[in-house]
Parts: sequence; C-alpha cells; structure tokens
Amino acid sequence: MELGLLYSGGKDSTLAALLLEDFYEVTLVTAHFGLTDDWEYAQRAAEAVGFAHERLELEEVVAHDAVERMVADGFPRNGIQAVHEHALEELASARFDAIADGTRRDDRVPSVSRAQAQSLEDRHDVDYISPLAGFGRGAVDRLVEDALDVTVGPSEDIPRADYEAELRPLLREEYGEDAVGDVFPAHDQTYVEGPR
Amino acid sequence: MELGLLYSGGKDSTLAALLLEDFYEVTLVTAHFGLTDDWEYAQRAAEAVGFAHERLELEEVVAHDAVERMVADGFPRNGIQAVHEHALEELASARFDAIADGTRRDDRVPSVSRAQAQSLEDRHDVDYISPLAGFGRGAVDRLVEDALDVTVGPSEDIPRADYEAELRPLLREEYGEDAVGDVFPAHDQTYVEGPR
Repeated sequence: MELGLLYSGGKDSTLAALLLEDFYEVTLVTAHFGLTDDWEYAQRAAEAVGFAHERLELEEVVAHDAVERMVADGFPRNGIQAVHEHALEELASARFDAIADGTRRDDRVPSVSRAQAQSLEDRHDVDYISPLAGFGRGAVDRLVEDALDVTVGPSEDIPRADYEAELRPLLREEYGEDAVGDVFPAHDQTYVEGPR
Repeated sequence: MELGLLYSGGKDSTLAALLLEDFYEVTLVTAHFGLTDDWEYAQRAAEAVGFAHERLELEEVVAHDAVERMVADGFPRNGIQAVHEHALEELASARFDAIADGTRRDDRVPSVSRAQAQSLEDRHDVDYISPLAGFGRGAVDRLVEDALDVTVGPSEDIPRADYEAELRPLLREEYGEDAVGDVFPAHDQTYVEGPR
C-alpha cells in the first residue's frame, strides 16, 4: 500500500516515517506554497534517512489567509491549523492509499480530531493515520534520541520546511518584522541530519 | 528500553506489538484474574508471532465489581473499562520503562484519554503508548490482512484471553446464563494464529 506522509524534516514526522516503513511504501511529502525554497531542507532530510520525497503545492491564498488570521489573533495556532487541514485535503486527493502526519498525542496544533479523521477518510476513500497520536512527548524524545541524529536550536536558525518557515517571510513582507516577533514567540525546533 | 504490552491474543494487540518491535524490547503481558486458563491462548499467540510473554495477576475484587457493574448497566462497557484501567495501573507498577495497549482510534472501550495517559505517566514515571491510537478500523484491518493469519468467529467460540473471556464464566456463575446473553450481545472476535 502506498502511503504519503506530510514531512517537514523535523523529528516528529521523521519518527512517524520510521514507525510506518515496515507496513507501507512510504513517500515523504512536503507541502509548500512555492514562496521559499525551504522544502529543500525536507528533501535533504528525507534522503538522509532513506525515504522517497515529493513536493505538494498548496494554494497561495491559504497562506495569505493564514498570516492574516495569525496577525489578528496575535498567535499562530489557528493559522497553522488551517494550513495543515488544507495540506491534508490536498494530500488525500493525491494518488495514495493512505496518508499520514506527525502529530503527537500532546500536540495542541496541528491536531486532527477523530471526527475530522473519519471525514477525511470517508470523503477521499483513503486511510488517515497519525502514527504518533498514541505517543507522548517523553516517549517521542526518547525514541528520537535512540534513532536519529538531530540538530536543535532557535526556531529562526534551524533549517526546516514546516509551515512556519514559509509563513515567516510572508508575514514579514505583508505586516513587517515586528509582526513576526509578535506572532511567533522564541522557541526551539529540530532538524534531522540522518539516522544515528 | 523494556516495554510491556497488554495482550489478549487478538489482532489489535498483536499489530500493536509489530508496530513497536523495532523500537522497544517488547514483552506481551496478559492480565488475568486467575479465574480461568484462557491466558494460555494469549501465550500461544505470542509464541506464534515470536514475542516473549508474561502473565500479570489482577485483583479478583476488580472482576467481581466489574460484573456487578455490567449487570446493573445491562451492557459491558463500564465494567471492561474499569478492568482495563486496573490492568494499566498494575502494569505501570511493574518493571517496564514503557507500557502499551492495543486501543484503536475508533474504540469506544477500553479507551484512555489524554489526561489519563498523562496521569499514568506522571504517577508511575513510565511512558504510556497506544500505538494504534492514530489508526482507524479500516487501516488496522488492512494491515492485519497483510501481516497476520487470524481466525474470526462468534465471540463465545473464539479462543482468546481478553477480559470478556474471563468475565463471562464469572457472570454466569454469579448471575446465571441469561445474564451473559443480556450483557454481551452476539459479536465476532479474532484470534491470531501466527504471521502470514
């Protein structure tokens, strides 16, 4: 069975890939708006851990709506959630038998409820799988420590291809540098260099 | 890391074991009250799929409370849930670094909420993992079809070691044959014969 996994090059989506690889033909899929080349970081991480990689083009209007929402809210949560839901819809419309993401049990965003999962499956005749949904942060960190070589650092310095990486420049361009700091408080991210 | 997985010999807990085996030293653990020898079915299934197996003795008073609750309710849900929570508490108190079960995304019972999972982890300094929490029924069925040789049949005919198997005779003994039919409507179960 062919499975497409939404992939940022971070530890969660990489671990999700490792959990599924014995059971599916896994392709790592980086969703992006074509606004930056950050998807290349995800491609490099995918190669380092030995998976096939593809890009999935999202609709640019979704990015504009997301940053507008973030600025109005003063925090990124709802904007990120909207982008993730759009990415899942697009991925579900692609050729895969099953689709997946790296959302963890303790993630507040993005998150996919049981009802959303069921709706996605019914409308697109696809299985939606969140292999880390039953793993807490501690368990994920311990598995990553065992399995992967990762770099950790401040969000703005770590090369990666998550939604934030591509929405930051758009936010800066449309609302100015201060808006970026207002919406995204300082936090750490990880990038997967390869297997340990 | 040593992981103990609550194991009935059914397809869900067997698939959970296969998902975790590359990441943990997995022991399949069958919780039982010592009322029947049905745990032996789980031991045999565990051998067939190549995992270490252990028994975990539960407190008999929990079984009596569970059947009392089932008869009062007229359905098994709350009684089964109480037994599963007791089993997780006992397993979390054992020697393992991580504990797990085979609960699926769509399971109504047993189910472990995010708050219950966090509480179990904090109180026992253990990781609690539900590897199938991010898999719906369709995905599980397709993976089982690929990976396992299973027997399917009416609940009362299928050899297995889930809570129902051990609570049925207790229910019969304490409340009579009619109570069994009242509490457990006819449904199918699976037993894992081995890998495919």
